[in-house]
Amino acid sequence: MSIENRLKELQIELPEAPAPVAAYIPCKKSGNLVFVSGQLPSVNGSETKRGKVGAELTVEEGYQAARLCGLNLLAQLRKFLGDLDCVKGIIHVKGFVASDNNFYSHSQVVNGVSDLMVEVFGEAGRHTRCALGTNVLPGNMPVEAELIAEVVS
Amino acid sequence: MSIENRLKELQIELPEAPAPVAAYIPCKKSGNLVFVSGQLPSVNGSETKRGKVGAELTVEEGYQAARLCGLNLLAQLRKFLGDLDCVKGIIHVKGFVASDNNFYSHSQVVNGVSDLMVEVFGEAGRHTRCALGTNVLPGNMPVEAELIAEVVS
Amino acid sequence: MSIENRLKELQIELPEAPAPVAAYIPCKKSGNLVFVSGQLPSVNGSETKRGKVGAELTVEEGYQAARLCGLNLLAQLRKFLGDLDCVKGIIHVKGFVASDNNFYSHSQVVNGVSDLMVEVFGEAGRHTRCALGTNVLPGNMPVEAELIAEVVS
Repeated sequence: MSIENRLKELQIELPEAPAPVAAYIPCKKSGNLVFVSGQLPSVNGSETKRGKVGAELTVEEGYQAARLCGLNLLAQLRKFLGDLDCVKGIIHVKGFVASDNNFYSHSQVVNGVSDLMVEVFGEAGRHTRCALGTNVLPGNMPVEAELIAEVVS
Repeated sequence: MSIENRLKELQIELPEAPAPVAAYIPCKKSGNLVFVSGQLPSVNGSETKRGKVGAELTVEEGYQAARLCGLNLLAQLRKFLGDLDCVKGIIHVKGFVASDNNFYSHSQVVNGVSDLMVEVFGEAGRHTRCALGTNVLPGNMPVEAELIAEVVS
Repeated sequence: MSIENRLKELQIELPEAPAPVAAYIPCKKSGNLVFVSGQLPSVNGSETKRGKVGAELTVEEGYQAARLCGLNLLAQLRKFLGDLDCVKGIIHVKGFVASDNNFYSHSQVVNGVSDLMVEVFGEAGRHTRCALGTNVLPGNMPVEAELIAEVVS
């Protein structure tokens, strides 16, 4: 099944790929690797709740914010590649969670990105990962995630 | 000398590779690069002291925690590759140190990972690195480190 | 035009490549990728203002600090490669900004690195990026940045 059909089956509609807000580009390819710039949980111009997980956001709200980051990562990849069928696998995801000093469940939050990749790509979506906390992210967003994908040559 | 013999000579016993606690995998290969997921300083289920370096942990305790992250990174690599002799070199290490706001010696802490790689692989273990602070890490752990290795094709 | 001539035209003089302060190396190549270790805003031994952006530093001071990180990244690349003409493109930049808890303009700060890469390499300098906040960086520095470049084989 094509990834487009898989997205339809899952009732996942990818957002418009957000335009970069600064002097960078969303995707760049080197060999068979495509690097995708850090994405925030803003979808089609609307935004998720801002603030820190453990303070302004619950774990579940953080998870949903991370999923929005993941949708933007996929939207950027699709825009760059034309379609997602040439994605051979997701290699690496790095997820940063703006966190209250006493919030320790970053893994559960970043699962919002990871679960999406496995839903969409199946086994090929399984990736290495680093889930991290930080005191503050751009725009006071709760999550930021970046990705490295492998594409067929 | 094989890396296994080198580990014996150094009296380094690698821990069991920790099972991922969420929706990711420990290692993934693309071309000659192997990415290893962020590892925490938990060894065979036991754990190092939790908290922030500069507050609950000294620099030396942080260094030892970083070394445990490094042992887990090697354990993951060995489990994935079968043995460590096909490692051509360590390319990159990223080390995050949960830090008191006034703690500035992240480099000394992340040396716990870096020194281990050079002990085990010699010159091939020398790597590029980014040592960083953060306000909090998963599970209130003091250090998290990830790695990219190059393997023979 | 060679990159050396371009640097002259831009009146950019690269600093001496800083020696690593710990157990790592500044650059390592794997395939066509060169990884450059995290660089701080210290140039020829002198330093930029220390502290957090949004507290001790303004956004503009943060931008200038990020540019110094970028100059050090280029200095490391040049020292490693011999000259910068074999750089085919900048693939990825990761910029960490030591931030007051209420500082949200990390993108504007990390533009200090990104703008420099585009000045020096033109379109080939456009890269993917992740701009992040953190509570504290090594040596109480305001910015740390790392880079992955692609070189001609």
